[in-house]
Amino acid sequence: MQERTDYCGSITEEYVGKKVSLDGWVQKRRDLGGLIFVDLRDYKGFVQLVFNTDHKEALETAESLRSEYVINVIGTVRLRDESAINENIPTGKVEVVVETVEVLNKSITPPFEIVDDVDASEETKLKYRYLDLRRPEMQSAIRTRAQIKHSVHEYLYDNGFIDIETPNLTPSTPEGARDYLVPSRVYPGHFFALPQSPQLFKQLLMVGGFDRYYQLAHCFRDEDLRGDRQPEFTQIDLEMSFMSAEEIQTVTEGLIARVMKDEKGIDVKLPFPRIDWDDAMARYGSDKPDIRFGMELQDLNDVFKDTEFKVFKGTIDNGGQVKAIVVKNNADKYSRKNIEEYQEYIKRFGAKGLAWLKYNDDKITGPVAKFITEQHDALVERLGLENNDLVLFVADKKKVVADALGYLRTDIAKNLNLYDPNEFAFTWVVNWPLFEYDEGIQRWTAAHHPFTMPNEEDVHYLDEDPHKAYAQSYDIVLNGYELGGGSIRIHDYKIQEKMLKALEFTKEKAYEQFGFLLDALQYGCPPHGGLAIGLDRFAMLLAGKDNIRDVIAFPKNSNATEPMTHAPRPVADNQLVDLGIEVSKSNKE
Amino acid sequence: MQERTDYCGSITEEYVGKKVSLDGWVQKRRDLGGLIFVDLRDYKGFVQLVFNTDHKEALETAESLRSEYVINVIGTVRLRDESAINENIPTGKVEVVVETVEVLNKSITPPFEIVDDVDASEETKLKYRYLDLRRPEMQSAIRTRAQIKHSVHEYLYDNGFIDIETPNLTPSTPEGARDYLVPSRVYPGHFFALPQSPQLFKQLLMVGGFDRYYQLAHCFRDEDLRGDRQPEFTQIDLEMSFMSAEEIQTVTEGLIARVMKDEKGIDVKLPFPRIDWDDAMARYGSDKPDIRFGMELQDLNDVFKDTEFKVFKGTIDNGGQVKAIVVKNNADKYSRKNIEEYQEYIKRFGAKGLAWLKYNDDKITGPVAKFITEQHDALVERLGLENNDLVLFVADKKKVVADALGYLRTDIAKNLNLYDPNEFAFTWVVNWPLFEYDEGIQRWTAAHHPFTMPNEEDVHYLDEDPHKAYAQSYDIVLNGYELGGGSIRIHDYKIQEKMLKALEFTKEKAYEQFGFLLDALQYGCPPHGGLAIGLDRFAMLLAGKDNIRDVIAFPKNSNATEPMTHAPRPVADNQLVDLGIEVSKSNKE
Repeated sequence: MQERTDYCGSITEEYVGKKVSLDGWVQKRRDLGGLIFVDLRDYKGFVQLVFNTDHKEALETAESLRSEYVINVIGTVRLRDESAINENIPTGKVEVVVETVEVLNKSITPPFEIVDDVDASEETKLKYRYLDLRRPEMQSAIRTRAQIKHSVHEYLYDNGFIDIETPNLTPSTPEGARDYLVPSRVYPGHFFALPQSPQLFKQLLMVGGFDRYYQLAHCFRDEDLRGDRQPEFTQIDLEMSFMSAEEIQTVTEGLIARVMKDEKGIDVKLPFPRIDWDDAMARYGSDKPDIRFGMELQDLNDVFKDTEFKVFKGTIDNGGQVKAIVVKNNADKYSRKNIEEYQEYIKRFGAKGLAWLKYNDDKITGPVAKFITEQHDALVERLGLENNDLVLFVADKKKVVADALGYLRTDIAKNLNLYDPNEFAFTWVVNWPLFEYDEGIQRWTAAHHPFTMPNEEDVHYLDEDPHKAYAQSYDIVLNGYELGGGSIRIHDYKIQEKMLKALEFTKEKAYEQFGFLLDALQYGCPPHGGLAIGLDRFAMLLAGKDNIRDVIAFPKNSNATEPMTHAPRPVADNQLVDLGIEVSKSNKE
Repeated sequence: MQERTDYCGSITEEYVGKKVSLDGWVQKRRDLGGLIFVDLRDYKGFVQLVFNTDHKEALETAESLRSEYVINVIGTVRLRDESAINENIPTGKVEVVVETVEVLNKSITPPFEIVDDVDASEETKLKYRYLDLRRPEMQSAIRTRAQIKHSVHEYLYDNGFIDIETPNLTPSTPEGARDYLVPSRVYPGHFFALPQSPQLFKQLLMVGGFDRYYQLAHCFRDEDLRGDRQPEFTQIDLEMSFMSAEEIQTVTEGLIARVMKDEKGIDVKLPFPRIDWDDAMARYGSDKPDIRFGMELQDLNDVFKDTEFKVFKGTIDNGGQVKAIVVKNNADKYSRKNIEEYQEYIKRFGAKGLAWLKYNDDKITGPVAKFITEQHDALVERLGLENNDLVLFVADKKKVVADALGYLRTDIAKNLNLYDPNEFAFTWVVNWPLFEYDEGIQRWTAAHHPFTMPNEEDVHYLDEDPHKAYAQSYDIVLNGYELGGGSIRIHDYKIQEKMLKALEFTKEKAYEQFGFLLDALQYGCPPHGGLAIGLDRFAMLLAGKDNIRDVIAFPKNSNATEPMTHAPRPVADNQLVDLGIEVSKSNKE
């Protein structure tokens, strides 16, 4: 095998006259009879090879080349003919006249062509993931992820953080999402769980005096998958002792600024804006607001408090909200049918209806226009209505209003191109509620997790009315995506006990699950806090993708399985015997 | 909470006169009545605090301080009295006169003192791992590991490697060690396995065109534990396309040199020596030779070919070996009893006996002396015997001789301090057999793994007599430890098929297990190879520890369980129902 001297994608005019040895894949071949052109590809790009009759043996071999053959060529770089110059690629002014060629490996015909606009199903691409990964856009996306990781390592190292690995074989805890379990062979009937996050271990590292910890941590959740979920994912996991929430946010901003500079060449403006959770919900109908555009939710309860429109009046009288968003100067783009589709869509949030009107020449039209006579002027003034504005109202319970209008706001902004897709708008959402009510299981749960410190002035609520407490927690949001989140943790044993009690843990159950943490809090646990950033999502957004699968080398499909290796698979009986477990009868094949 | 200005361990003479705010743990307190000294500890070291009557409130608080309390102090740095200077610590010339103190958290009495020479059982230390980790030597060991990781990231990034994560939920394969299994909820009765290594995925990344991959990969093996084994471990995992074994070794040497320079300030000499596997076994009785000292195994078959000593003669006639090591100038240190203990010990390698003699004044003494009359001169000359030499002979099958004498060689060298424990001697062991015979399961297995490329000139053996083939594989050895290993992989579909056939895979079974790899080899797989270095072991050796537990933040004990969190644990019934598995009756509690 000849040693490679250069990469295909690196060959530019500077190389003219030089002899090079290149390795790569045959992208395409044009046989002009006695003259063959081949585009040779490696991860750095393409270069054009020329086989001609000056080197007959090479020309003969070239006749046998097919797509995706792996070859080494030795040849001399020259300028292309003026007419053959391709300005679109870095190597477009040159070509390599091949003197010798060696076929390093052949390829049968691939199931799809290795190009960016590939025509293949997601399942086929996952089955032949090693071919899909050859495509330049996939190479680029996976490399973006690696670049982010590199920037993270450098920044955190330079800032005194220590990279510590926490275990992957951990205890199962009933809080939160479903665990992936791992049967123990030494203690049959006992199980490890794969970690949903290194939360407790990183807190214990603070107890252990490590001061500033980080890890690119693999986390696992056995949940049904949505577009941007995977059974395993990676988080940039941080924890710091003796620091306030603000100090932790500042360190995090520095990290993000470093990544944005390295990967995008962008100088992000620091500090990022901070918005209280209550305000985010009120103004954007979301705890992860996209602040690249306005169209904020407007509270109209006072405008309509005396309305005769029963839907609004009834909602207000029952403690609900009437809110609206204004689609500026685009009313003409929305037909009744469009709006009815939205109306249908927002039912999933529990919304009973979507009232709307259009404004033109100081007149409002639409189904609810007739109910809005007395409030006409007040409404026009409050919303600052101008010609061709569309107003969408939702009157309902607070949560329903927020979800429905929050969704409409982002969907409409996307359709109308109200923001620059290349803008990166970061914001902190701070001061979250400590608890949230889970309608599914009909009880109060920790909004962040059970180890989150209440605001200092709210600690007393834990004894009185816990669900009123707000927390020292914070999310970092990018363009409407939750990029990460964190909190100051409870370092005080008594507060932790109260918190678990508020979550309906008996003392016995608390010790059974978290005894090691409760012990640790009593041995000089320092004040500490931290956060975690979703690497997959961050990479997805920076790579300009809309699914995290595109920044994971070997992702699972939407059934949490792997079409290439066919994992999961049945296993040999003796493997299960060793573990002391059996497959339940109804599930045997 | 006051913001920290400096670290305890950083306060030196340069700080004299400065006001500092420090956070840390109370190491110890000496109360002299109206004057209290406290040693305050953080991860950078200790500083002496002085509480006196100038600051009565602080003095009063200081009276309540106990070991491991977490405090913040604000005070001014001054020089210690001449008589109180401690030259042994960097902060030994100064002390901080405390003006205000805040107790951030209390501590109950810890189960052991936070000092390096701690008097506590391994189990107690693991149960209170967060306290054990506070000890300076543990802080230092865990930081050594992190430093190595940082050097690895930098070197590999600078050398064009891309950090790619491979899946942790992978298919189970029957080859190699026992897998940890993870039941699938979506397909009950099917299982993922935690990866024993990313081997196949990194090969697929080469097929995918990534050219140079690396990962600090978590790997899992469900095996009974020995001293330097853990159920999960980390490897520095590399793979490269279009490179020869020698080129891969050169890149690896650069990596190791970088780590040694960064962590130890040592300029290792490159290239490392290379020794053929056959030679390593012959000269050192080991495939991971410690080359810091000599005492090599000497082949004496020719000397004894006509001996009347039946044990030697019979061994030679049956195709076995008679070999010896010479313990130079230390015969007087070994009593008959010592040697009999060795004799007993080496039975575990299958050795039937240990012959020995001592040499003094041109006379040999010892149990076998009477059988060595004719060979006396030849033996003395061959072994270069001098006064006070001890010779240990093993006559047996090749493997038994190697194991027994290899063990004796390293054990004796250690006892006699024949090497500098601070020396780091790296060596490559190359040219391994492709197969090895596994006595346990009575069949031939892959010496490295089934994807290892035979030497080019040995490929033909796959059709004829596969077990004669040697492989393009290499191990990197440090001071008698296997630090890592790798190989050129098979990129040729036909060779891979033959290899699997030689391992008694039917075509059907091969496809069932490795179909995705066999497919991938047919779509333009580039020539490639790589290696993996055990991070835990590397960190252990550089940190000067003798158990990898000491460089893992939260290791498992020798039963593969975790005394702190009590993982593994029983889980809730509904978790098992979700997964469609049951604990076998005999294992229920």
